[in-house]
Amino acid sequence: MPTIIVGMAPILYTFLRIVFMMNSQTVSIAKLEEFCLAALRKCGLSDADARTTSDVLVTTDTFGVYTHGTKALAGYVRRLQAGGLKADASPCIDAQGPAWAIVNGHSAIGMVTSVFAMNLAIEKAKTAGLAYVGVRNSCHFGAAGYYALMAAKADMIGMAMANDYPSMAVLGARKAVLGTNPFAYAVPAGKESPIFLDIASSTVAGGKVRIAQMKNLQVPDTWMVDTQGRPTTDPFLYPHAAFLLPFAGHKGYGLAMMIENLAGILTGTGAMYDLHNWVDHDPSLATNHGAAFLAFNISAMSSLDAFKTRVDELIHEIHATPKAEGVERLYVPGEMEWENRRASLAHGIMLPEDVLASLRGLAEKIELKTDWL
Amino acid sequence: MPTIIVGMAPILYTFLRIVFMMNSQTVSIAKLEEFCLAALRKCGLSDADARTTSDVLVTTDTFGVYTHGTKALAGYVRRLQAGGLKADASPCIDAQGPAWAIVNGHSAIGMVTSVFAMNLAIEKAKTAGLAYVGVRNSCHFGAAGYYALMAAKADMIGMAMANDYPSMAVLGARKAVLGTNPFAYAVPAGKESPIFLDIASSTVAGGKVRIAQMKNLQVPDTWMVDTQGRPTTDPFLYPHAAFLLPFAGHKGYGLAMMIENLAGILTGTGAMYDLHNWVDHDPSLATNHGAAFLAFNISAMSSLDAFKTRVDELIHEIHATPKAEGVERLYVPGEMEWENRRASLAHGIMLPEDVLASLRGLAEKIELKTDWL
Repeated sequence: MPTIIVGMAPILYTFLRIVFMMNSQTVSIAKLEEFCLAALRKCGLSDADARTTSDVLVTTDTFGVYTHGTKALAGYVRRLQAGGLKADASPCIDAQGPAWAIVNGHSAIGMVTSVFAMNLAIEKAKTAGLAYVGVRNSCHFGAAGYYALMAAKADMIGMAMANDYPSMAVLGARKAVLGTNPFAYAVPAGKESPIFLDIASSTVAGGKVRIAQMKNLQVPDTWMVDTQGRPTTDPFLYPHAAFLLPFAGHKGYGLAMMIENLAGILTGTGAMYDLHNWVDHDPSLATNHGAAFLAFNISAMSSLDAFKTRVDELIHEIHATPKAEGVERLYVPGEMEWENRRASLAHGIMLPEDVLASLRGLAEKIELKTDWL
Repeated sequence: MPTIIVGMAPILYTFLRIVFMMNSQTVSIAKLEEFCLAALRKCGLSDADARTTSDVLVTTDTFGVYTHGTKALAGYVRRLQAGGLKADASPCIDAQGPAWAIVNGHSAIGMVTSVFAMNLAIEKAKTAGLAYVGVRNSCHFGAAGYYALMAAKADMIGMAMANDYPSMAVLGARKAVLGTNPFAYAVPAGKESPIFLDIASSTVAGGKVRIAQMKNLQVPDTWMVDTQGRPTTDPFLYPHAAFLLPFAGHKGYGLAMMIENLAGILTGTGAMYDLHNWVDHDPSLATNHGAAFLAFNISAMSSLDAFKTRVDELIHEIHATPKAEGVERLYVPGEMEWENRRASLAHGIMLPEDVLASLRGLAEKIELKTDWL
């Protein structure tokens, strides 16, 4: 019985997804990219920066991670227009050594700074074997997994993480203490797609609560506490009067705290309430987000071919594991996302209604004409 | 209602702890160390290696992490006597660069190899800024937190992780796929004690199921699945006919998979079923465990004093967070363990009955006289 109740969160989420998919629309990758590029150029971004940002957001949608894809574009545009994000800013290196660097985003859009930082980590790892690049004065960077996968594409193990404005409490608190600080890693395989994981430190990402708001649905009472520290099922209290809870209690809390140190404090940027909320706060303010990227150069430490063969074997061994009755497949981390991506590449991206609504609102606001929205 | 049920696991654990504490005995740190040293010297360990191993195990007990302290000594002694662990082996560096190394444990006791590896990571981080040291041909290394704290003591951020013989399934599987691969990190503070976290990838560590076996108690049905992939509450099925589940579903599974790659595959040691179970398998066999250690040299990248001051502020801000009714304190990761340690240093270690039973059994087996067991 308890297992059934614990299992309700993913069931509810699947239900929400199905509800949204009923009003979904399939769009080609090219058309969605074109839309992003046009919107970002209208805000004054250079062609290169617009392409970088667009690739992060559209790729994230192709993986089916719609909470962190083009749905967020309207929020970034709002800050670009208000001055909290600087369209003409470029990230630069504030300090560096052979195996590390601290990058200053100067309030450039988070994707541009993060791609710059992960590329720098990959370059440094080519000679040093591994590298850490911390980022300061950045903003929300979208899906952490994108940056981890950049390393995997370069035949390295990648990690990416970022801090965020507090929206997550801990059990016993009646105020948020940390962001839902995301963590991602990716490992290149041989014939298989890279293993990758992209998770929030909270039970669910805030975007899932916002979806429940849009559909006027309650959320499981394991997701949030209210301003009295009591569990709540009311999505409308979020984010001002309800706070997400960390996954697995002290484990998610502890992970968020590690990220606060590696992405926030070590980089000399904001931590906890020094940051601003990129969605709700005055868009003319810099949000002061921090991030951290790691790249491990496999070929410096071992035979790359042997490594990749063993990763394939690991994947195959998990696939071959005996399954419970009614279970057809066991997935390795990232495998569902790769399947979504292959379907998106073949048939276009099936954008759910909440993403379409956000894009339509943005198109209207910045007077952008499309033939598909 | 669901929250109450989800909350039952820690309540049950606290209950188990109380039951054990009823039969606990306080022993001085010096006496417990003396016991460990004598046992390890009897197995042929050098004085230095015996001291290293003893310090890892006794320190872990002082933190109150009894599942991973001296309770495990009997298991290591068994393998030392049978030849699976080599008393006279020394770890060596198989390959290295300025910011990384691969250490070969040559089946030396896991604590000796792990302390060697983390010291090497700290040394390399002094010049490179950060370092990764992977370990192969090792064994169970005790509590990961000990090694992460070595880095914090050297004013660095530390991480430690290890793979293990599969005892953890994923939902839908009816066989274990990965070990309960532990992960730990530590961050030095200024006036406060270091922040640190030491977690298993599973909902609970296997040691907690073994405690339930000893007390003939059921476990919550969120901890394990049986050989049909169904949730089970029977602790006696573990580890051969029941398998632990990862924490937070795909999040714990994904973390374990990351560790399998960083500690197992990248180091060229065993992964999944290439390993042996250090508790139950033939003690004359090498277990082939891998491990990975990271050290981030704070002072290379920023002002150490400023960093520590900000970590203190982070801790104070969390302490000052408004609390739910009936909640007196909010703890930062590691804070409960530091309180246990201070109590142990002041009054001796209050060893629970299961640890005492293990030590008594060992004393009898290797004919070691003590005046306190």
